[in-house]
Amino acid sequence: MSKPVQKVVLAYSGGLDTSIILKWLQEHYQCEVVAFCADLGQGEELEPARQKAMNLGVREIYIDDLKEEFVRDFVFPMYRANALYEGVYHLGTSIARPLIAKRQIEIATQCGAEAVSHGATGKGNDQVRFELAYYALRPGIQVIAPWREWDLTSREKLLAYADANGIPVARDKRGDVPYSMDRNLLHLSFEGKVLEDPWKEPEEEMFVLSVSPERAPDKPTYVEISFEKGDPVAIDGERLSPANLLARLNALGGANGIGRVDLVENRYVGMKSRGVYETPGGTILGVAHRAMESLTLDREAAHLKDELGPRYASLVYNGYWFSPERLMLQSLVDASQTYVTGVVRLKLYKGNVIVTGRKSEQSLFDPVVATFEDDHGAYDQADASGFIKLNALRMRIAALVRQGKP
Amino acid sequence: MSKPVQKVVLAYSGGLDTSIILKWLQEHYQCEVVAFCADLGQGEELEPARQKAMNLGVREIYIDDLKEEFVRDFVFPMYRANALYEGVYHLGTSIARPLIAKRQIEIATQCGAEAVSHGATGKGNDQVRFELAYYALRPGIQVIAPWREWDLTSREKLLAYADANGIPVARDKRGDVPYSMDRNLLHLSFEGKVLEDPWKEPEEEMFVLSVSPERAPDKPTYVEISFEKGDPVAIDGERLSPANLLARLNALGGANGIGRVDLVENRYVGMKSRGVYETPGGTILGVAHRAMESLTLDREAAHLKDELGPRYASLVYNGYWFSPERLMLQSLVDASQTYVTGVVRLKLYKGNVIVTGRKSEQSLFDPVVATFEDDHGAYDQADASGFIKLNALRMRIAALVRQGKP
Amino acid sequence: MSKPVQKVVLAYSGGLDTSIILKWLQEHYQCEVVAFCADLGQGEELEPARQKAMNLGVREIYIDDLKEEFVRDFVFPMYRANALYEGVYHLGTSIARPLIAKRQIEIATQCGAEAVSHGATGKGNDQVRFELAYYALRPGIQVIAPWREWDLTSREKLLAYADANGIPVARDKRGDVPYSMDRNLLHLSFEGKVLEDPWKEPEEEMFVLSVSPERAPDKPTYVEISFEKGDPVAIDGERLSPANLLARLNALGGANGIGRVDLVENRYVGMKSRGVYETPGGTILGVAHRAMESLTLDREAAHLKDELGPRYASLVYNGYWFSPERLMLQSLVDASQTYVTGVVRLKLYKGNVIVTGRKSEQSLFDPVVATFEDDHGAYDQADASGFIKLNALRMRIAALVRQGKP
Amino acid sequence: MSKPVQKVVLAYSGGLDTSIILKWLQEHYQCEVVAFCADLGQGEELEPARQKAMNLGVREIYIDDLKEEFVRDFVFPMYRANALYEGVYHLGTSIARPLIAKRQIEIATQCGAEAVSHGATGKGNDQVRFELAYYALRPGIQVIAPWREWDLTSREKLLAYADANGIPVARDKRGDVPYSMDRNLLHLSFEGKVLEDPWKEPEEEMFVLSVSPERAPDKPTYVEISFEKGDPVAIDGERLSPANLLARLNALGGANGIGRVDLVENRYVGMKSRGVYETPGGTILGVAHRAMESLTLDREAAHLKDELGPRYASLVYNGYWFSPERLMLQSLVDASQTYVTGVVRLKLYKGNVIVTGRKSEQSLFDPVVATFEDDHGAYDQADASGFIKLNALRMRIAALVRQGKP
Repeated sequence: MSKPVQKVVLAYSGGLDTSIILKWLQEHYQCEVVAFCADLGQGEELEPARQKAMNLGVREIYIDDLKEEFVRDFVFPMYRANALYEGVYHLGTSIARPLIAKRQIEIATQCGAEAVSHGATGKGNDQVRFELAYYALRPGIQVIAPWREWDLTSREKLLAYADANGIPVARDKRGDVPYSMDRNLLHLSFEGKVLEDPWKEPEEEMFVLSVSPERAPDKPTYVEISFEKGDPVAIDGERLSPANLLARLNALGGANGIGRVDLVENRYVGMKSRGVYETPGGTILGVAHRAMESLTLDREAAHLKDELGPRYASLVYNGYWFSPERLMLQSLVDASQTYVTGVVRLKLYKGNVIVTGRKSEQSLFDPVVATFEDDHGAYDQADASGFIKLNALRMRIAALVRQGKP
Repeated sequence: MSKPVQKVVLAYSGGLDTSIILKWLQEHYQCEVVAFCADLGQGEELEPARQKAMNLGVREIYIDDLKEEFVRDFVFPMYRANALYEGVYHLGTSIARPLIAKRQIEIATQCGAEAVSHGATGKGNDQVRFELAYYALRPGIQVIAPWREWDLTSREKLLAYADANGIPVARDKRGDVPYSMDRNLLHLSFEGKVLEDPWKEPEEEMFVLSVSPERAPDKPTYVEISFEKGDPVAIDGERLSPANLLARLNALGGANGIGRVDLVENRYVGMKSRGVYETPGGTILGVAHRAMESLTLDREAAHLKDELGPRYASLVYNGYWFSPERLMLQSLVDASQTYVTGVVRLKLYKGNVIVTGRKSEQSLFDPVVATFEDDHGAYDQADASGFIKLNALRMRIAALVRQGKP
Repeated sequence: MSKPVQKVVLAYSGGLDTSIILKWLQEHYQCEVVAFCADLGQGEELEPARQKAMNLGVREIYIDDLKEEFVRDFVFPMYRANALYEGVYHLGTSIARPLIAKRQIEIATQCGAEAVSHGATGKGNDQVRFELAYYALRPGIQVIAPWREWDLTSREKLLAYADANGIPVARDKRGDVPYSMDRNLLHLSFEGKVLEDPWKEPEEEMFVLSVSPERAPDKPTYVEISFEKGDPVAIDGERLSPANLLARLNALGGANGIGRVDLVENRYVGMKSRGVYETPGGTILGVAHRAMESLTLDREAAHLKDELGPRYASLVYNGYWFSPERLMLQSLVDASQTYVTGVVRLKLYKGNVIVTGRKSEQSLFDPVVATFEDDHGAYDQADASGFIKLNALRMRIAALVRQGKP
Repeated sequence: MSKPVQKVVLAYSGGLDTSIILKWLQEHYQCEVVAFCADLGQGEELEPARQKAMNLGVREIYIDDLKEEFVRDFVFPMYRANALYEGVYHLGTSIARPLIAKRQIEIATQCGAEAVSHGATGKGNDQVRFELAYYALRPGIQVIAPWREWDLTSREKLLAYADANGIPVARDKRGDVPYSMDRNLLHLSFEGKVLEDPWKEPEEEMFVLSVSPERAPDKPTYVEISFEKGDPVAIDGERLSPANLLARLNALGGANGIGRVDLVENRYVGMKSRGVYETPGGTILGVAHRAMESLTLDREAAHLKDELGPRYASLVYNGYWFSPERLMLQSLVDASQTYVTGVVRLKLYKGNVIVTGRKSEQSLFDPVVATFEDDHGAYDQADASGFIKLNALRMRIAALVRQGKP
């Protein structure tokens, strides 16, 4: 056990694990537990969580709707960077943790708690993300990570503890323990159970946010997304708030079988794990943003972003949202987005997100220069000769020397 | 006109443009033209090209089947690097040019020609790719790029010249001039015509290598690809030569509506252009290779590759295949592939390439460590506490100083 | 000859080359030449240039003191990035060109000129730097680069032209033609003559801004430089304007034999060349800035800067000051400098710049944590165990698999 | 205490700390301790260490001369990469640790030990370097890090323990405790004591390997270093083995006041610390290698190395010598060194290492192309025009659009 604690703010979901933790904290630390539920669009009523917490004797309960802040200040900045972890993962869990941690620290300061706690295990990335954020924002905070402390080291012990303390246990439709899941407005993730064998295909019944491509409509859906300075602002001409816009994209993507990813990924704590994700709206947004940039962003600006994108993604994945290096990269990214404004048209069809058009008043596509037809002198083809000759010069000199005829 | 020339080796396709060039070289330079046709799997008989060249008075004609060399020594090394230009383009044209140039230089040396020529225009990337390769391999070579020299500056003038010289002109099905296309075993590209408006969707009739997702079968196709040291070697257990393997993947991809990309891209010569690509087999291969790596490649090795991938792709796109920096990056990439060996199972369905399994004797996925269940001590969760604390330390110290409580 | 021109603004130094160019422009283009002399601290009176230009019939002459703008808006931002080209060159010429070009374009717009001209040769980097800046700032500008147009292709022809037009020719002390030199408040560069043999040591008499280390004082000079947000603001406690501060550092460095660099460098146009540079003040500033950062900058911020520094330097060297990618990198760099505030103490001695102390209220050096003595719990050494174990985990798993004992 | 142990191999220096550790391991673990002394050129007789170990009851003692392996397989590969940590530190300690660890693991396997131990503290980088290497080479090894386990948490307790166990305690000349030092053929490092205040200048008496610049000879020393494929092979024409060559450079550098660095650096474990280093020979070697590359290495190869150099340096600093990512970078670096062959002439003078000449049969410096004089057509200045125009094109188009005149 760590140092004694008077009051701790727990990131509480109302689910089994954090209910057990809540009880365990009360018992083990003999401290007052403040419950904090963040509404990030996980698609559940949070009022039942309030009741559960009250039943467990909690007196201070915070239930905060953070959906707009989440999308505006976390999801959209990340999409400006075209961040994908290991090429495909949209970072749906990773990007939510810093916001929960930030609000949790605010509450701790407000209600005079000297500690915070979370329900992430000692094997995963989330503990890192929560705690790096806690420490960056309030360096003297005390952190309690029950999974790394307690002796409830198997599912059996956990369930026994729940039973003994009157904490209800959910089962899935078949009565099995559920997958390890995390859901918010950006995504839903699955880990564990059959997924622990990377050779096995996930079962169709597992998915929640999307139909399979096979069950998606036989007719494509066309959609137009408008961007301003790198952020989406409207769908089919209708302006929407960030959270509403992402929700709309989720509905569109989910209905068309879009956004599933099945990945063996590398955790920051050093092991590989297998995750399956549904990111219907985010997948659409990612394709659309790249298409908007393809028309409006300078070549070297785009390439610089592409080279730094994997690093930005790793920082988010590893929990360094509040680090100086993430902020530096964000400054670089944001400096590129001034003219990323216009409209992208997409065709959504059975898992595919197909770009079918992009237009912008800031378009750098110059049809007169680009045409295969006569351009009336807009581009002097003879310039290419000097361009090539000088770019080749270093290789020519080297070849002359290496071939022994200097 | 450049310096006088006795003999020039022309990269000849048998098509309209290079036929005009062949004639123009004979007339303009009063030189002997050697015709070289490379078979890179463009899917056409090349014997008719021989006849056309003979009709134009050519005495030395080289028709070389380079398909195996193309896939083994150019395509596969590039896929080891997971190279995609601007996030999506599979570099199908870019990767073919260095091989054509290399063989062309060999022929020039063999047959005593002091010059080489190609049919690429002065606005595009291909002129750069051809010529950088020429100069790198034979620094004293003379290069003739007719598009940058002649006065046939409009399609009308070209067609008039063809008519005047008895060169037949192909039309597409509707009698229109065709798209500007390039095809080989890796891909088919389209530019020009309606595509010059990036807001317009391509017409379905344009496509050649693939059916549309809509017209693809309603039943998915499962396929297993085996890898050895980063290269694919077998499909569904059947070992195939590189070119045969890629051809098989093309058939699978094309039948399932896979591999179309519609892109506004940034050319090396400084302008944006719009291209549409079909890369059915390459798209499957790219997904499969990443999946194989996800299981067998170390995390930091994978991330280093991800950070350098865009640069590798730009080098290939810009024509620097034979540059020292591409060779250095290839060394780095190849050093990572020793254990990228195993099998990936994919589901192909209406445009989707879905990873459904991966296995390997070199798998770094350790189910005992990764499990959410009891791991019997394989991983000590308490270790995570120190890991996080030390990773947070620099941010904590900074926060203490910045918040004024050092 | 390019298109006809009515009025051209020439970057004019008063020296031989630009005097010949001035005359040649008048003769060759039959146009009015506006002379623009930028005072960047080259250490010469510019009024004689005014007289020379008037003698050559120029009616509009601009002589602008740009020293403060040069140091504040060009030199200092570059030093924030710790930019050194190829490890050692302080970019003294490169960083001046964009400012000259910017002012030249302003003057052209102001006085109604449709063209600009400069005295850089067709082999060097300066032509690129001038012209990329011209085009970025006024894309329709006409550029006249006489060195690439005229037939004065040897020094003899140039001197004959000068004689024929009454343009005075300077000789060095020994009556030789001088080195090719460029001087401003940041540096003085030398190229040509004996330096064209990279095995030969430069002659001591060549140097201007600095004594040799051998002739520098036998006693060291101590100096303290104060920084605010990454920029130097005071020397030995005395606040100085940017230009005055750099001039003071030049005096200190020059007197102590500091800042000579002898380099074979890679030009952007594809060849290697040998340059010798004197950058007395800049060398001191570079060392001081790094030392200030060593105390106040986060580790990952510093490392990110180090990785991007060579690219930033190449952009400046190659003339891309006004490019979006340089601006993006500047945003990243500037975002790191908020707390780079404090004092660095240096010892200057016979060519050496030795850091002997650094202090800051923003210091991240925490003596309590860092001490080898008892730290009373500020740092828990046991944390290191978990830190190492998890960082090693991926390599351990790999070793187990590779060694065949999974 | 960790798990029980029968036999442990200790990296033993014969000094106070590892003598205490030796005793403590025997007492605390009741195990047999095997002593391993690596001779990496620390400049001390190691036979006394044998005697000390015997006096402490050790029966198996390994004293290995690893100097040639150290320089050939560790130091030289690192210098091929021009690796400097945080711009200035030559990584003298970092590069030695992997070799010690490698040999220690070999001995453990040979003599049937199940554990290894070292004398690095829980605050520093060396524990990480040792242990990452141990785990990478023998993933099941048990590691005992006494500093993280025992209760000897202050210098007083340590000295008391030494006294109680008859272990002699060294004092410096003044009877003070010495600096924390690490010495090998590449360098000598100092930490602790007065250095813990970064504002204080080190005392002159502290230094061992070098005289101060002030006390160095008034006459410069010229030296020529020959390279083959990136590695130094001869000094002033005399071929020397790697270790002998580095020793010779140390003598030259030390006599001329070369190679001192005073740095506030960022440790991998999260804190800043202040270190002072003497690297006389390595400093000369680093300058010489860069100069050799400046003449023989392609521009883009050199720039790619410069961009990746900081990352390579961090990997070595952080202890990842045996990681796949270091090996990948080494492959990239080594692929660039094929032609880095020739001679560099240096002038050593009172702390300065001045390049005064470089020559090579593989020189890419082409005086005909580079000359300011007439080059008789080797380079066509008109080529530069097209080169600039196409490089400017993307910025021109952007300026036209942004300025509203497309």
